[in-house]
Amino acid sequence: MTMKNVLLTIEYDGTDFCGWQKQPNDRTVQGVLEAALSKVTGIDVRLDGTSRTDSGVHAKGQRATFSGEFGIPVDRIKQTVNNILCGRGMSPGENADVRIVEAVEAPPGFHARFDSRGKRYRYAIRNASEMPVFDRNYRFLVEKPLDTDAMRKAAAYIVGTHDFRCFQATGSFERKTTVRTVSALEITEFPVKPDTAAKTPAGRDIFIDISGDGFLYNMVRIIAGTLIETGLGKRRPEDMKTVIEGLDRTAAGFTAPPQGLTLMEVFYDVF
Amino acid sequence: MTMKNVLLTIEYDGTDFCGWQKQPNDRTVQGVLEAALSKVTGIDVRLDGTSRTDSGVHAKGQRATFSGEFGIPVDRIKQTVNNILCGRGMSPGENADVRIVEAVEAPPGFHARFDSRGKRYRYAIRNASEMPVFDRNYRFLVEKPLDTDAMRKAAAYIVGTHDFRCFQATGSFERKTTVRTVSALEITEFPVKPDTAAKTPAGRDIFIDISGDGFLYNMVRIIAGTLIETGLGKRRPEDMKTVIEGLDRTAAGFTAPPQGLTLMEVFYDVF
Repeated sequence: MTMKNVLLTIEYDGTDFCGWQKQPNDRTVQGVLEAALSKVTGIDVRLDGTSRTDSGVHAKGQRATFSGEFGIPVDRIKQTVNNILCGRGMSPGENADVRIVEAVEAPPGFHARFDSRGKRYRYAIRNASEMPVFDRNYRFLVEKPLDTDAMRKAAAYIVGTHDFRCFQATGSFERKTTVRTVSALEITEFPVKPDTAAKTPAGRDIFIDISGDGFLYNMVRIIAGTLIETGLGKRRPEDMKTVIEGLDRTAAGFTAPPQGLTLMEVFYDVF
Repeated sequence: MTMKNVLLTIEYDGTDFCGWQKQPNDRTVQGVLEAALSKVTGIDVRLDGTSRTDSGVHAKGQRATFSGEFGIPVDRIKQTVNNILCGRGMSPGENADVRIVEAVEAPPGFHARFDSRGKRYRYAIRNASEMPVFDRNYRFLVEKPLDTDAMRKAAAYIVGTHDFRCFQATGSFERKTTVRTVSALEITEFPVKPDTAAKTPAGRDIFIDISGDGFLYNMVRIIAGTLIETGLGKRRPEDMKTVIEGLDRTAAGFTAPPQGLTLMEVFYDVF
């Protein structure tokens, strides 16, 4: 058996998890995955994830690395772990809310978090008078109409390299720097197909896709909240500039709730 | 206060419910709704639902009636009950997996079940090598390719008026007659959009939509199972005729699991 370093791509429905990071008495994505991986490899697996997503936050493209000496070939890890998580029966298993999308061998020393160039998150809003039950855990409902043109104008001030302290949750762990680069912020809209039974207008989905080299604690959710307040006419688009320059959390908007947020992808120079 | 008779249209995510029908120690759709309606009307509400859906089965167009003397106007019931169920906070409430889609006043004596002319159910299959976590509770995964033309040929034998005893779960409650009319059975397919992170083929959704004047216990799920076995080449399409004529449950296919099934709509002469 030789030393292997493995890079995983992972998706999960965050609804029933207490976030990514392992905790002694809570069900976490890291905890569930490490248990399954330890079973499959026969070693005590310790995962390094790229993003410590909060309770209720989802992922379609989370990444994590682990290494060790074990027998199972890397190209069999995905299927074997997913069988443990999802079961092979007719009904979804107890841990079917997390799944390995891909497992590849990485060069020695490659680290999912330290070697990442950045990430893309999506914040999903349902702008409609009502929330269908099937979407409740994956959208934030905004009942009043949102002015997406105003939101786009405000978003333009965020793109670039700035000290983003205004978008950092108060009481956050002290960091070396709060300067980050937001490389793209796109707002897209899609009409929602009405259900057969529903007689009310179905409304639309509004997605805020934000890419950057790194994000402060709650940064995407506070940006989403500030953009929503702009879309509701509570803020002018050009005030976003003052908010950023003021470096003051209290000048920014509310923290939009976790169920609207999904970690979409992590960027690397390779892979 | 005058006597009112109310017809509700209801949607629910069946995943965390022990089915529709109230039971003393389990969380059921009827139980949760009756509690909320009793609170709102101030009377002891007893709901008559159209379909006693099983654990894990969903509904977009379940119907139910209740009557009594109460003060709240019928056009305020929907919003008031939904506020109790879903909460008005930022995160979905504890009972946000059930919702009233519509509440209308019905003529005295109108009964959601006895006055219905029929129903439409959808059985949803994901025909792909893998199941994304977000679809796990709403699709049945069939990994091998399904021949939908063969399924459609077999389905044609089901449409019409037949004794459908072969599609009734063994041990079902004895009924006056097992003759039912299936008025339509349509099989449609839709490609599934691949996720950003997924590098595997996304596959397709196959929907079996079946309408009829009434259904025996587990009938739709056994029809779905028999059609899936046909699509996999385990049965010939023309054997469906023999299965129906044989009146023997053991000659039909397996009972497809509940998470694929949704009650789509209930038909009435009025409403």
